[in-house]
Amino acid sequence: MHTLSSVTHFRVRFRECDPLQIVWHGNYLKYFEDAREEFCKEHGFSYYDVRVRGYATPIVKSLCEHKLPLRYSDKFEVEVSFIPTPAAKMIFNYKVTSQNKLVATGETVQVFLDKKGELVLSNPPFFYEWKQKMGIE
Amino acid sequence: MHTLSSVTHFRVRFRECDPLQIVWHGNYLKYFEDAREEFCKEHGFSYYDVRVRGYATPIVKSLCEHKLPLRYSDKFEVEVSFIPTPAAKMIFNYKVTSQNKLVATGETVQVFLDKKGELVLSNPPFFYEWKQKMGIE
Amino acid sequence: MHTLSSVTHFRVRFRECDPLQIVWHGNYLKYFEDAREEFCKEHGFSYYDVRVRGYATPIVKSLCEHKLPLRYSDKFEVEVSFIPTPAAKMIFNYKVTSQNKLVATGETVQVFLDKKGELVLSNPPFFYEWKQKMGIE
Amino acid sequence: MHTLSSVTHFRVRFRECDPLQIVWHGNYLKYFEDAREEFCKEHGFSYYDVRVRGYATPIVKSLCEHKLPLRYSDKFEVEVSFIPTPAAKMIFNYKVTSQNKLVATGETVQVFLDKKGELVLSNPPFFYEWKQKMGIE
Repeated sequence: MHTLSSVTHFRVRFRECDPLQIVWHGNYLKYFEDAREEFCKEHGFSYYDVRVRGYATPIVKSLCEHKLPLRYSDKFEVEVSFIPTPAAKMIFNYKVTSQNKLVATGETVQVFLDKKGELVLSNPPFFYEWKQKMGIE
Repeated sequence: MHTLSSVTHFRVRFRECDPLQIVWHGNYLKYFEDAREEFCKEHGFSYYDVRVRGYATPIVKSLCEHKLPLRYSDKFEVEVSFIPTPAAKMIFNYKVTSQNKLVATGETVQVFLDKKGELVLSNPPFFYEWKQKMGIE
Repeated sequence: MHTLSSVTHFRVRFRECDPLQIVWHGNYLKYFEDAREEFCKEHGFSYYDVRVRGYATPIVKSLCEHKLPLRYSDKFEVEVSFIPTPAAKMIFNYKVTSQNKLVATGETVQVFLDKKGELVLSNPPFFYEWKQKMGIE
Repeated sequence: MHTLSSVTHFRVRFRECDPLQIVWHGNYLKYFEDAREEFCKEHGFSYYDVRVRGYATPIVKSLCEHKLPLRYSDKFEVEVSFIPTPAAKMIFNYKVTSQNKLVATGETVQVFLDKKGELVLSNPPFFYEWKQKMGIE
């Protein structure tokens, strides 16, 4: 089975750096979200569909491990990969690189909640169909 | 007519500072919001009431003028004052001081929107009553 | 004298919206900063030069006035214009539009500080030269 | 060996919530940082000392797992515990609770860098002394 992934390019903003002159660690979760958004756009996964069908997909786990710092105006890229699972979850892995060096890795896990805010235990039909269409189910 | 005001105490957080080692200017709007929240709590103005009655109070203007920088772990205080106006608006002025020195001043203006998102041109009854009770109408 | 300006395109991110489903007002200062960065890049004004020469350019005033809200995934653009002044200041005006409608306007003012953190009262040579080169002095 | 911990009380701010009306997941790293700051203050661990001695303590890992959402104006508390390790690292665990319910758990790991930005492999003397004084070494 192939891996569905997407690469997004960034440049460190002034306000994202802290007094140590490096990107404040919490900002990586923003980069992950931007990369995830790009992934969804690129692979036809629509948050609009999610909402219209009455689902929400809150994040239940986020992890980031830092190898090297990023500084103001550094260019870097985030590769986000969809990690297949039979469970009703969306798992993404992240690889942050700059000038071919590994800067950070990460993971997020999202679940599906229905209109009542209850956890959905089996794959929502639209999600199952999207995975089939993408050849990852 | 007296002035309704409130003072909130803060300490600069690490992540609020930028590579120049000073508080990034955009963070003052967060301090203003925290100070406004404290004002509302102190003077019995309830955002819960606002929402329950179907109103929203978006900010239509925000201004901040900086005199001195703040640095990591500096203690400072924000004095927020309600500026009376017959219009259906909430105008607040802000004075940021640290060690008795003026750090910044600011202003925010909020309007009332009804359930349909339309601008409300006359004072909502609950707001008029609050102003009367506070002796500022 | 012509006006030096630059247009940057954006799309509203999920995390930039608040419980009212609109962009939280403080985020416009981030859009302004991103637009300013793009302006500098486009017109050859280098913050690297600024720092190398020992200057800092803190913001001493920021203003934003809101006409219409922006919502998650809305596309919009920020036009930033350099406002000439003989003083040792950088004044920028901002116009935020979405689908040809005016969303917000704004202004920022920056001053120059020297290595000692003292306010610079006359135009730093490199800034004067840049203005001359751009035909705005 | 006892556990060194600290509890900090919070209230969810308006701007910390997203269009799903819950705290945006990335904000928990801010709560963790605030709780860590409080821990350091309470237990006499000084970042000022860290800097004066020429060290930096960047975060190399951050993890957050969410069990329940938090909403605007919810009161909650973060219990942060120091996890002893012989390595030259600072490991903290976090437990977020609201009304006696578990909201989230988390972990951060920090390392020591010296003046040259090199990783410090053995405990810096001032850190070793602090651990001894606290009875956790």
